[in-house]
Amino acid sequence: VAERGTRVGFIGLGRMGVPMAVNLARAGFDLAVWNRTRARCRPLEQEGARVAADPADLAAGVEVIVTMVADPAAAEAVYLGEHGALQALPDGSTAIDMSTIGPNAVGRLAAAASARGIAFLDAPVSGSVSVAEAAQLTAMVGGPPEAFERVRPVLAAMTAKQIYLGRSGSGATMKLAYNAMIALTNEAISEALVLTERAGIARADAYDVLAAGVLASPFLDYKRDAFLEPDRQAVAFTTALMQKDLALALELGRTLDVPMPATAASNEVLTLARRLGYGDGDLARVADTLRGHPARD
Amino acid sequence: VAERGTRVGFIGLGRMGVPMAVNLARAGFDLAVWNRTRARCRPLEQEGARVAADPADLAAGVEVIVTMVADPAAAEAVYLGEHGALQALPDGSTAIDMSTIGPNAVGRLAAAASARGIAFLDAPVSGSVSVAEAAQLTAMVGGPPEAFERVRPVLAAMTAKQIYLGRSGSGATMKLAYNAMIALTNEAISEALVLTERAGIARADAYDVLAAGVLASPFLDYKRDAFLEPDRQAVAFTTALMQKDLALALELGRTLDVPMPATAASNEVLTLARRLGYGDGDLARVADTLRGHPARD
Amino acid sequence: VAERGTRVGFIGLGRMGVPMAVNLARAGFDLAVWNRTRARCRPLEQEGARVAADPADLAAGVEVIVTMVADPAAAEAVYLGEHGALQALPDGSTAIDMSTIGPNAVGRLAAAASARGIAFLDAPVSGSVSVAEAAQLTAMVGGPPEAFERVRPVLAAMTAKQIYLGRSGSGATMKLAYNAMIALTNEAISEALVLTERAGIARADAYDVLAAGVLASPFLDYKRDAFLEPDRQAVAFTTALMQKDLALALELGRTLDVPMPATAASNEVLTLARRLGYGDGDLARVADTLRGHPARD
Amino acid sequence: VAERGTRVGFIGLGRMGVPMAVNLARAGFDLAVWNRTRARCRPLEQEGARVAADPADLAAGVEVIVTMVADPAAAEAVYLGEHGALQALPDGSTAIDMSTIGPNAVGRLAAAASARGIAFLDAPVSGSVSVAEAAQLTAMVGGPPEAFERVRPVLAAMTAKQIYLGRSGSGATMKLAYNAMIALTNEAISEALVLTERAGIARADAYDVLAAGVLASPFLDYKRDAFLEPDRQAVAFTTALMQKDLALALELGRTLDVPMPATAASNEVLTLARRLGYGDGDLARVADTLRGHPARD
Repeated sequence: VAERGTRVGFIGLGRMGVPMAVNLARAGFDLAVWNRTRARCRPLEQEGARVAADPADLAAGVEVIVTMVADPAAAEAVYLGEHGALQALPDGSTAIDMSTIGPNAVGRLAAAASARGIAFLDAPVSGSVSVAEAAQLTAMVGGPPEAFERVRPVLAAMTAKQIYLGRSGSGATMKLAYNAMIALTNEAISEALVLTERAGIARADAYDVLAAGVLASPFLDYKRDAFLEPDRQAVAFTTALMQKDLALALELGRTLDVPMPATAASNEVLTLARRLGYGDGDLARVADTLRGHPARD
Repeated sequence: VAERGTRVGFIGLGRMGVPMAVNLARAGFDLAVWNRTRARCRPLEQEGARVAADPADLAAGVEVIVTMVADPAAAEAVYLGEHGALQALPDGSTAIDMSTIGPNAVGRLAAAASARGIAFLDAPVSGSVSVAEAAQLTAMVGGPPEAFERVRPVLAAMTAKQIYLGRSGSGATMKLAYNAMIALTNEAISEALVLTERAGIARADAYDVLAAGVLASPFLDYKRDAFLEPDRQAVAFTTALMQKDLALALELGRTLDVPMPATAASNEVLTLARRLGYGDGDLARVADTLRGHPARD
Repeated sequence: VAERGTRVGFIGLGRMGVPMAVNLARAGFDLAVWNRTRARCRPLEQEGARVAADPADLAAGVEVIVTMVADPAAAEAVYLGEHGALQALPDGSTAIDMSTIGPNAVGRLAAAASARGIAFLDAPVSGSVSVAEAAQLTAMVGGPPEAFERVRPVLAAMTAKQIYLGRSGSGATMKLAYNAMIALTNEAISEALVLTERAGIARADAYDVLAAGVLASPFLDYKRDAFLEPDRQAVAFTTALMQKDLALALELGRTLDVPMPATAASNEVLTLARRLGYGDGDLARVADTLRGHPARD
Repeated sequence: VAERGTRVGFIGLGRMGVPMAVNLARAGFDLAVWNRTRARCRPLEQEGARVAADPADLAAGVEVIVTMVADPAAAEAVYLGEHGALQALPDGSTAIDMSTIGPNAVGRLAAAASARGIAFLDAPVSGSVSVAEAAQLTAMVGGPPEAFERVRPVLAAMTAKQIYLGRSGSGATMKLAYNAMIALTNEAISEALVLTERAGIARADAYDVLAAGVLASPFLDYKRDAFLEPDRQAVAFTTALMQKDLALALELGRTLDVPMPATAASNEVLTLARRLGYGDGDLARVADTLRGHPARD
């Protein structure tokens, strides 16, 4: 089992990756990092981490490698590309991908890892940047159970919960289903809010009712400002990013013969949102899309 | 302002109505009740309430009347039918309808009340039977603000929160939007659950993940058993009843030019659920509907 | 059986009603007419028709009455309102409603007619104004079969086909299903056209392909200009009128446990079209709606 | 320009490919053929065609190559795989893919062809086997216009119309849009038919009305038996195959920011159809799916 001092490599220092890696360093792991843009390694250097030259260089000396990248293409490049990590990982080491890349990409990476005798876990997380900073993320884990047990302390340094879901790809699948449910919840808020608003109820009053009853959730709490004042809020999660995940979820539904009619309807609303110019806007722009905005302005 | 001893009439002693009326009696109001099926008045008689002969008889002697009935037709019968309440209510009294009947029916009743000089409030509630027993319901209120202030103590005897939303019909509209959001949340759980299940993840594990993250809500908590063991659970809210409310919500959306594509998709799934024989089943049967069950059994 | 010289009354001289009534007059029936706006009776006077003072006056002297009005409310006013036709129709006469009012309204009118000993047929038609002028409409007929046989010559004077579909309401139901299929065909054209256009294919070229293959239909032919040059064409059938019919069709589906997911999706697009200001626009504006127009202009 | 005697190679002798290749042979082209399963080459040998050993062998001696295969993977194998055609095609020759593979796969093949100095056209066709036999197909063509003019006689031997739509991929895109419109038309028939049937109208009567009016089309004609007696008819086009094309169409819509809400809804119905066991059934099984069949049997 991994413990303080275990050599861990971390690739992917984006908005989520930096606080996750910082938590690894502070938990006492012997950390090496790599990122395509080297400048983003600086906060980790300050935590005492070594900066590797490339994924292979990073992989050569570690027992556990963690990746947190943008999409399937980035994950495949980091593991399988030139100077990729997989060729260099020592026998018996474990790879953990925490990105949202879907079970198909996980399948390809896990097969390649397995061919090299490396255990591969998919362990995407739910939670935002502030949740990552507090090490309060939830990890959804798929892959060999003994590998999970071995690296659980590594996951526990970054997350509050580590839920083991079964064979390889289970974590990736669960994450897609989870994001589909977030997208539908966001759509549900939008439809309810625009309906009541058009009926003359103040937006804030309607939101208070929705957020106060049996549907009250952390999500409703932290989206409040985005829905009430969409023009004044920072973007938390864009419609375009969500649509990437919905496309993977719907493709999976098709493969597994699972009808997802409301997710499909919601996905088309995201397309319309992007059509209206909200591709880089927050999910709360779905309400503006249903309003016919900006057509009316 | 209504206070202890104020004469209040209550019509509609269904599963929700009984605990609501009991709470009125225990709060010290001078209560009269009426119900189509007289037997259901018994628990209120035990609380000291008088049982009226018909709605008009009940209305004749009260300052405030509260109605909690099944649908628009029942509400119109009780207020406007033969021996209806409206003709008998004293000048200056106030009528509060707490049913889920939609803003159109509210509009007709409020107009008839207004013509007779009676103030009319729509104040539907969110919450289940156990919440009603604990007087922890939330009331969503529309109508003349001074009438609301006057009868607020009556509402407060039955509910924990009384949210005033504006002109007549606002409460009814908010309730429809609220139920549409519940239906979509239920649909979202169903789609996520069936997707993960078909991918090989245990139903309970997937539910735990959905219910533990940012989407955690009282609704997810209390539907857990219904989704995990649909054949063994009591029915809380049927697909057929929810569809009645969705039909009103979608009709309102059409009237107000508000597209509700995911609600509409979810509504058609409820139709299919009823087609498959789940009309009297719990909302959680939506998951079975997406499973193609009972086709597979 | 009705023959030349049979006294026939006709109510509802709108865009469709005038050519239908003219065809009745020219077929040799002894025609009386009534219309809310008297000026619209003039072309019929020129054909030798008598103009009645009100529906009851018209009904008093006829063996067959034909109505072609805008909606259920107008039909109920004409038959059941003050000076309505039903009270005045002679024993043994037959009423034919050719409007699009749905099976519920037909049920109410047929029951009232039956109570008075009058046979009632629902016989809505498919076809446009020019088709009506050429007496080439198709009638979809529900009601007592012997009444249908009796008045078939009256229908044959206005229509090329009279399809008997069964019990009262069958014609009204068939018409709703027919219009739902038109709405979905219109939506299908719109989705295909906007997709190919955004991929760089000229709108006219794409339309030619769609209209030339196995989907070639009179509808695709006559909508061509509306889709290719939406800003320059007269409006044939508005999105708002179609949505009235879709609402009736979806309500019927709900009542009969028939899921109509694509019709429901298409209906929400019509709502968005109206939201964007296309309520009085032609059905072809659905394509503009999917384009995000006028947001982009 | 290609003329009688021009050496043409044809790959892919499936149900559509055989009659297309036969028509090429009968038009006087000097034909070579190849098919993965050699037995299917026999009818072409009888027409005097040479049977090649592999795609490269076939390609070596031709001026024009035509491919008609099942999916993108098959097309890529035939052109780019071991013993693939592309490496062997002579300079200045032209490749025409007539399969339904979508614009992305076309893009990859066209780029590879271009790198070798070969002109590549995408020219998928609409029409069934009997239409192919009669050389009455419609080809939708994308690619270099001069290549199109050069090989038009080859296309004309197999098709009645050759519609040039623009740059490479335009034919593939048009075909996806066309099939999406077929899927929606099929869904529209299904919804209308089940609605009227549940209202008591005989299935055949309802179909006659739908197929006789402004929506009358060859498609409605030839699907009649499949909808009226689904258990007794041969399968023309399976739900699973259509869903493959819809998936490509919806992915394209997402890429191009085109909302396709009714296509998306219809696609989820196809998923449910497959879930109920109709994956290898005809498109008309969509009606059974909406009926909740086989759940009721």
